[in-house]
Amino acid sequence: MTVHFSRMAVIGLGLIGGSLALAARKAALVDRVVGCASRQASLDSGLALGIIDEGTLSAADAVKGADLVFLSVPVATMPTIMAEIAPCLRPDAIVTDGGSVKQFVWQAAQELLPNPANFVPGHPIAGREKSGVEAAVAHLYQDHRVILTPTADNAVEAVQRVVELWEGVGAIVEVLDIVEHDRVLAETSHLPHLLAFSLVDSLSRQGDSHDIFHYAAGGFRDFTRIASSSPVMWRDIFLHNTQATLDALTVFETGLVQFRQAMEAGDANALMNIMTRANQARDYFLNLQNNHLQNNTLQQNKEQESDQ
Amino acid sequence: MTVHFSRMAVIGLGLIGGSLALAARKAALVDRVVGCASRQASLDSGLALGIIDEGTLSAADAVKGADLVFLSVPVATMPTIMAEIAPCLRPDAIVTDGGSVKQFVWQAAQELLPNPANFVPGHPIAGREKSGVEAAVAHLYQDHRVILTPTADNAVEAVQRVVELWEGVGAIVEVLDIVEHDRVLAETSHLPHLLAFSLVDSLSRQGDSHDIFHYAAGGFRDFTRIASSSPVMWRDIFLHNTQATLDALTVFETGLVQFRQAMEAGDANALMNIMTRANQARDYFLNLQNNHLQNNTLQQNKEQESDQ
Repeated sequence: MTVHFSRMAVIGLGLIGGSLALAARKAALVDRVVGCASRQASLDSGLALGIIDEGTLSAADAVKGADLVFLSVPVATMPTIMAEIAPCLRPDAIVTDGGSVKQFVWQAAQELLPNPANFVPGHPIAGREKSGVEAAVAHLYQDHRVILTPTADNAVEAVQRVVELWEGVGAIVEVLDIVEHDRVLAETSHLPHLLAFSLVDSLSRQGDSHDIFHYAAGGFRDFTRIASSSPVMWRDIFLHNTQATLDALTVFETGLVQFRQAMEAGDANALMNIMTRANQARDYFLNLQNNHLQNNTLQQNKEQESDQ
Repeated sequence: MTVHFSRMAVIGLGLIGGSLALAARKAALVDRVVGCASRQASLDSGLALGIIDEGTLSAADAVKGADLVFLSVPVATMPTIMAEIAPCLRPDAIVTDGGSVKQFVWQAAQELLPNPANFVPGHPIAGREKSGVEAAVAHLYQDHRVILTPTADNAVEAVQRVVELWEGVGAIVEVLDIVEHDRVLAETSHLPHLLAFSLVDSLSRQGDSHDIFHYAAGGFRDFTRIASSSPVMWRDIFLHNTQATLDALTVFETGLVQFRQAMEAGDANALMNIMTRANQARDYFLNLQNNHLQNNTLQQNKEQESDQ
């Protein structure tokens, strides 16, 4: 017997929430989906595309009667939404989210939700170049990782049901300590984005940006792509996973000083050591990915890999 | 009447030199190609693949009788090779190169070659994931940029013949001031590689690299790919375009301090400003690329673009 919900509320109907709704419907995990967005146009699209059964601009209205609530709004907006839905939540409703920062969202849930034991923090590692509910696809989570970061305060059954929800739409669920999540994501996602935003901004402010872009070689082109991500989403991440990101930045800066000193000293051995270790890390990463592929035989991930 | 050479010597027979030889033969720009490599196996491959007519382990022997010499050895090896070939060069031979750093190579040519006016510094902006002469393809330079950085001391005819050589194999030739070349490449290629090498090394030395790679999200994955480049090639670049790269690093570090301060101060506006400017820079870059595509209607570049 797979998990089943009678009424799912998606607060923040965009790519992430819309794709979960589509996938959950397709897998017959939900009977009815109500979508909530800040723009009527998103609701109209969601209705027209058959992603939701009902749409409302009110988060409080959306959660009425729902046994599953998925919060997919920007991280900084989570507390506002939680405060808004709290009075209308069913006591047994399971609430989960898709935010990229987990401690901040979890803390907000502890303070604002009536039954925080039923709030299961989650973070699907998925995305597309496009955004918005119009870009939603039922296979977005197929064979992609979803990290859940439950704590000892969570109701075990709520966690289990959220695990089954994600597995039911084809995702690979992994449970990670909530502090560890924010640290690992700071290192592998938030810091690289910070560096890309900062580099592209610094160079393009130099006044000779025409030449820079005209001759942009492989390296810079990759940085500009990373730096094309949504400023609003990343502002929220940088302001709500601040300490972990600053800690990762400090580690990076320490390494950067060593690289600079090696160049200034003309120290070929030191440079070779740094770059050889970086090469080995890449090999390790590719091996991990290959093992992952072999274990899961995922055509979709193969496409990703060739896309690198 | 297109340019024509009777005997081309390729010193450093790998992907870059091998592809130029293949393309020049295919376009009937050369009668005969002699390859020089440090390993006999490369010469054997070059002969077997029909890339060269003759092979030799001696650079001095290779250039005898050649009216065109292409140097495609690592940047730091250029002076050694120049000293070796100098006594054997035909007085009218045109010498050009494919090094990523131009002032250092040009300076070496002034000091070591018998007729430095016939040395035309060049830098093809091309590459593949694979390396070695076995990876050589005749279309490598088709619709790709080749930057030439001649100086006032150059013989005009030598420059013109090298322009025609590259245009004859389908490349888009652009002439750039030699100091400007090293500065622009430091910013768009050498610094991004430095940052990627340094980040991947710093994080993987943290001792928790398993988690980092396991959960590696988009940003870090791109950095590991950039950091998978050849340490030897990049050691030479960092040690021979040192000042321009350090200058670019200083610009980057200044921007990074501002980003850190904005995060520490919780300054949402400052973060938004940085990231919005970076977004705009990306848009500008894509527009430039689209214009380039429209002007050249290049299926190959379209594939590259979709690969980002």
